Amino acid sequence: MIFELTILGNSSATPTLNRHPSAQHLRMLDYQFLIDCGEGTQMQMQRYKIKKSKINHIFISHIHADHILGLPGLLFSMNLMQRKDPIHIYGPETLFEILDLYFKNTDNIINFEIVKHITQAEKNEVLLENESVKVVSFPLFHRVPTTGFIFYEQKSLKKLNKDNCKKYNIPVTEFLSIKKGNDYISEDGKTIIKNSELTFENKKPMSYAYCSDTMYDERVIQNIEGVNLVYHEATFLHEKLERAIQTMHSTALQAGMVAKKANVEKLLIGHFSSRYDNLDILLNETKSEFENSFIANEGEKFIWE
Amino acid sequence: MIFELTILGNSSATPTLNRHPSAQHLRMLDYQFLIDCGEGTQMQMQRYKIKKSKINHIFISHIHADHILGLPGLLFSMNLMQRKDPIHIYGPETLFEILDLYFKNTDNIINFEIVKHITQAEKNEVLLENESVKVVSFPLFHRVPTTGFIFYEQKSLKKLNKDNCKKYNIPVTEFLSIKKGNDYISEDGKTIIKNSELTFENKKPMSYAYCSDTMYDERVIQNIEGVNLVYHEATFLHEKLERAIQTMHSTALQAGMVAKKANVEKLLIGHFSSRYDNLDILLNETKSEFENSFIANEGEKFIWE
Repeated sequence: MIFELTILGNSSATPTLNRHPSAQHLRMLDYQFLIDCGEGTQMQMQRYKIKKSKINHIFISHIHADHILGLPGLLFSMNLMQRKDPIHIYGPETLFEILDLYFKNTDNIINFEIVKHITQAEKNEVLLENESVKVVSFPLFHRVPTTGFIFYEQKSLKKLNKDNCKKYNIPVTEFLSIKKGNDYISEDGKTIIKNSELTFENKKPMSYAYCSDTMYDERVIQNIEGVNLVYHEATFLHEKLERAIQTMHSTALQAGMVAKKANVEKLLIGHFSSRYDNLDILLNETKSEFENSFIANEGEKFIWE
Repeated sequence: MIFELTILGNSSATPTLNRHPSAQHLRMLDYQFLIDCGEGTQMQMQRYKIKKSKINHIFISHIHADHILGLPGLLFSMNLMQRKDPIHIYGPETLFEILDLYFKNTDNIINFEIVKHITQAEKNEVLLENESVKVVSFPLFHRVPTTGFIFYEQKSLKKLNKDNCKKYNIPVTEFLSIKKGNDYISEDGKTIIKNSELTFENKKPMSYAYCSDTMYDERVIQNIEGVNLVYHEATFLHEKLERAIQTMHSTALQAGMVAKKANVEKLLIGHFSSRYDNLDILLNETKSEFENSFIANEGEKFIWE
């Protein structure tokens, strides 16, 4: 299993000297995803050694400046780097209007295909699905239509117990069936060997939920129930609850409540208001609800093994 | 005289880890100007302690991504900081189309006035003029309509020689006329005192020309003839002349030629291609034509006294 999440930005709308607007890079099996793309993301990618050329899918949660302003520059840079591979972008319709206006007004012709996937924030939607990964969007509750994203590792094939396969003389032609979980049955039907004898169990598939930006809402909890790792915004301390409600954001305490109620394994918090220099007070508040919580520090890599 | 230029970005289209796209901050007398606004400019302003709230005039040379992508974020941040003062933006018409599309699609209503000044790149134009400063745009020669800008300190009033004014019993009511350079003539016309006896000479007014992006063209030289300080792009070494011509940029050697032929006092070069790690080789090439040349290093302040 390969899961590596790199935080490229953890600031809310106003960036600070050391905190950039929202962006994350997720390496999951053979895929490299970019999640949101605030101003300066392409420079943050350079800083943390993320190769632009390896990213084929970009997910944008909503059309607020601090989640999208880095996208035109990233695409222009990809073009200058002679990119030829198509790129899939998932986001609200308006995002593509903005990109089209930039492309219309420049002489830098984009020489690769931008495959537009218009998201909608009213219901869950499968955005990408194949043998190895599945990506689902789900509604968040913010001032403009906003989606969260869940990245699932699909159930992978089992690993062969080669020693036992040899011992029982299992023909190579049966290997795929066995990897898929079937028992071995010989041609004459006389020999049956249980699958558990011939394979090793894989770990439980990994899942990661990205929740930004959103106010506290029970429907979010239902959607992310039981995922391994959650990123949840924590713009304010709970003493600013009124401001959080007014701007449709969450408090650090609420982020912890969501993680606890959804029975997740681990929580990352981010999207911090520029008023907070010391992020530990936010983390402590979250931990009062959910102990296994961490600050999504810029440049930090969260690896799941 | 107050003249302080801070370099916020000196990279060409593809930013590098340490070089941001084009942006400069100019403090001239009572004015604070922003010149171009590449991605990340608002963070660079924080880094180099430039206050967003003090800027009332923004000049954009042309609609290429590396000169404009920081503008929407800067304006949104100004708004979040409760700005009320109008801001004057000078740039091509398309710039305002792009800004309008962002504003149309956000719920963050901009609560200050954006005064739009549409520039045109066919001829010289006075963009701003008053008793203390004058800003002129002039054509550059690039792939899209592009203007340079010249910032002039206006001829300021002379400084009174108070001791001599007292000695000659000059009435206070005559002081303004004398500061403007007139001789003193008594009411009966009998006493005439030369202005040079009553005032100190001020230094020559300061002028600064911003030339980015442009290919080498003699018409640029005519426009910036005799200014004190010039910033000129130097995207490539002269060995890449063919590439410079193809992309309508200048070489470091050509930047030096322009400064020499225009009889300027001092030259700054910037807008470097990301292929150059070592900027000294570019500077050396420029100096072979014009000795008083400097790298426009990020964060560096050029002060004129």
